[in-house]
Amino acid sequence: MDRDVSVAGPKGVLAAVLTPMDGDLRPDHAAFAVHCQRLLAAGCHGLSVFGTTGEANSLSVDERLAALEALPEGGVPAGTLLPGTGSCALTDTVRLSRAALVAGASGVLVLPPFYYKNVGDDGLFRFFAEVIERVGDDRLRLYLYHIPQMTNIHLGLPLISRLIEAYPGVIAGTKDSSGDRERIMTLCAEFPGFSVLAGTETLLLETLRSGGEGCISATVNVTSRLARRVHDAHASGLDDEAEVLQKRLSQLRGSIEAYPVIPALKVLMADLTGDEAWRNLRPPLSELHEEQAKELLSEVPLAELL
Amino acid sequence: MDRDVSVAGPKGVLAAVLTPMDGDLRPDHAAFAVHCQRLLAAGCHGLSVFGTTGEANSLSVDERLAALEALPEGGVPAGTLLPGTGSCALTDTVRLSRAALVAGASGVLVLPPFYYKNVGDDGLFRFFAEVIERVGDDRLRLYLYHIPQMTNIHLGLPLISRLIEAYPGVIAGTKDSSGDRERIMTLCAEFPGFSVLAGTETLLLETLRSGGEGCISATVNVTSRLARRVHDAHASGLDDEAEVLQKRLSQLRGSIEAYPVIPALKVLMADLTGDEAWRNLRPPLSELHEEQAKELLSEVPLAELL
Repeated sequence: MDRDVSVAGPKGVLAAVLTPMDGDLRPDHAAFAVHCQRLLAAGCHGLSVFGTTGEANSLSVDERLAALEALPEGGVPAGTLLPGTGSCALTDTVRLSRAALVAGASGVLVLPPFYYKNVGDDGLFRFFAEVIERVGDDRLRLYLYHIPQMTNIHLGLPLISRLIEAYPGVIAGTKDSSGDRERIMTLCAEFPGFSVLAGTETLLLETLRSGGEGCISATVNVTSRLARRVHDAHASGLDDEAEVLQKRLSQLRGSIEAYPVIPALKVLMADLTGDEAWRNLRPPLSELHEEQAKELLSEVPLAELL
Repeated sequence: MDRDVSVAGPKGVLAAVLTPMDGDLRPDHAAFAVHCQRLLAAGCHGLSVFGTTGEANSLSVDERLAALEALPEGGVPAGTLLPGTGSCALTDTVRLSRAALVAGASGVLVLPPFYYKNVGDDGLFRFFAEVIERVGDDRLRLYLYHIPQMTNIHLGLPLISRLIEAYPGVIAGTKDSSGDRERIMTLCAEFPGFSVLAGTETLLLETLRSGGEGCISATVNVTSRLARRVHDAHASGLDDEAEVLQKRLSQLRGSIEAYPVIPALKVLMADLTGDEAWRNLRPPLSELHEEQAKELLSEVPLAELL
């Protein structure tokens, strides 16, 4: 592996990293570090650990902190990490964000507090503002994590604009998992200097072409190589090649997305590594039924993965 | 206060207790214990602390545990407590539920894990089953907290039935905040021995008449006296009186519910106690605007409250 993984802030291809669990459903620190290194070797520029795909909200804060600490200890360069630190509780988000900073992460990916609904922009603004003030560190780079299908919270453009204005440089970017192409293009156009990362690699090339930074995606856990090739072809100005590769990348994602994504990815990882423990998931997520798993494995071209 | 507040399990009128916060938005333990005692003195049979109204999900687990411990120390009988112990993380719910048992609470009120959507009954069943197995204590009395407007998770009757069958006695009841009258009546009819508590005191009398146990309600923070009178009139067979009182109780709730309920209740508490700190809320919740607060205070007959 000769690729330079030291980047100034999250750019390019980032995996929303799966969290391997042991038989008691505890994060398996060793397997986690190995997987992170595997992803970097396969071409990922960065690693968004503890997001939706990483089942972060199914872990306690202490479990998240312990697993985060284990990554640099396991040889994962801290600068490649963009940990999710969002939670419903202000104090948890502050604690997790501080720990990410101390660990040397390149930024933090923060969900809006997602328990209460219809709270209005003032309440959401105040949440992010309180997080920033309480963390109280100029090095903080906060990425807004927009995933309304899980949070049922809408991070609208007026709110984002207000946050950027109040905390320039600190409000550094967004992962947009809305799947809303228009929104992503608008974010790229309207907020120069604000890093836009699409929540799916199907929009990787379009996002890069629109001035966005790249993507953070669940399926990149197994599509890193191909996603990186899309990125590099674009960077080298090989537009036609980039399009052909993007088309194949989107097809690959489509065949995985036909299943519940996190369980499907864990089935693929179990197959790719030969370690059945990869299938473990914390409830409320459930493993694929055996027939589904077989179907998935027969449909996805395993040789193209990782 | 000469009322007997020692009950076998949550029955009757329970407040979904507000959590007073200090200027740094930390739970104010002393004010919390005083408020709990105020509610018991005003007629509450029990206290559902750390629910939606209590902003529990805006607090860290450590903050919830510390505030829970402070209540018996502050003179609140532990047997009156039905603490919310639900969270997105299995390990947090286990830890909180164990602590509630150790403290001597009458049961625990458990949200489904609410981050992931469309997880299916198998995943939800497995979550509750894992909580019960991991707590591993026969004294556990688990109440299912159904509040789909916050969780976007539907606890359907087939799931409830399956849980009761797997863990008879342990799956002890439900707080149903769906506002769905028919559903509450069906739960009362279909699951004998399963305690049904309506999530609003507007359904108190109907729930009691259908064989349910009572209500757990946010607005009971200020309507305890009247709610208790409805309960007692029903218990004494004074049906006409119960209906008249219920009508007034529902009107009172209606005039509060016209505002965002938690901020409105905190404004009322600030006015009733003369302590402006009562208005403090953790983001993402926001205080009422001053005009709204004035309007509320002019519309609600304060003399009838508590």
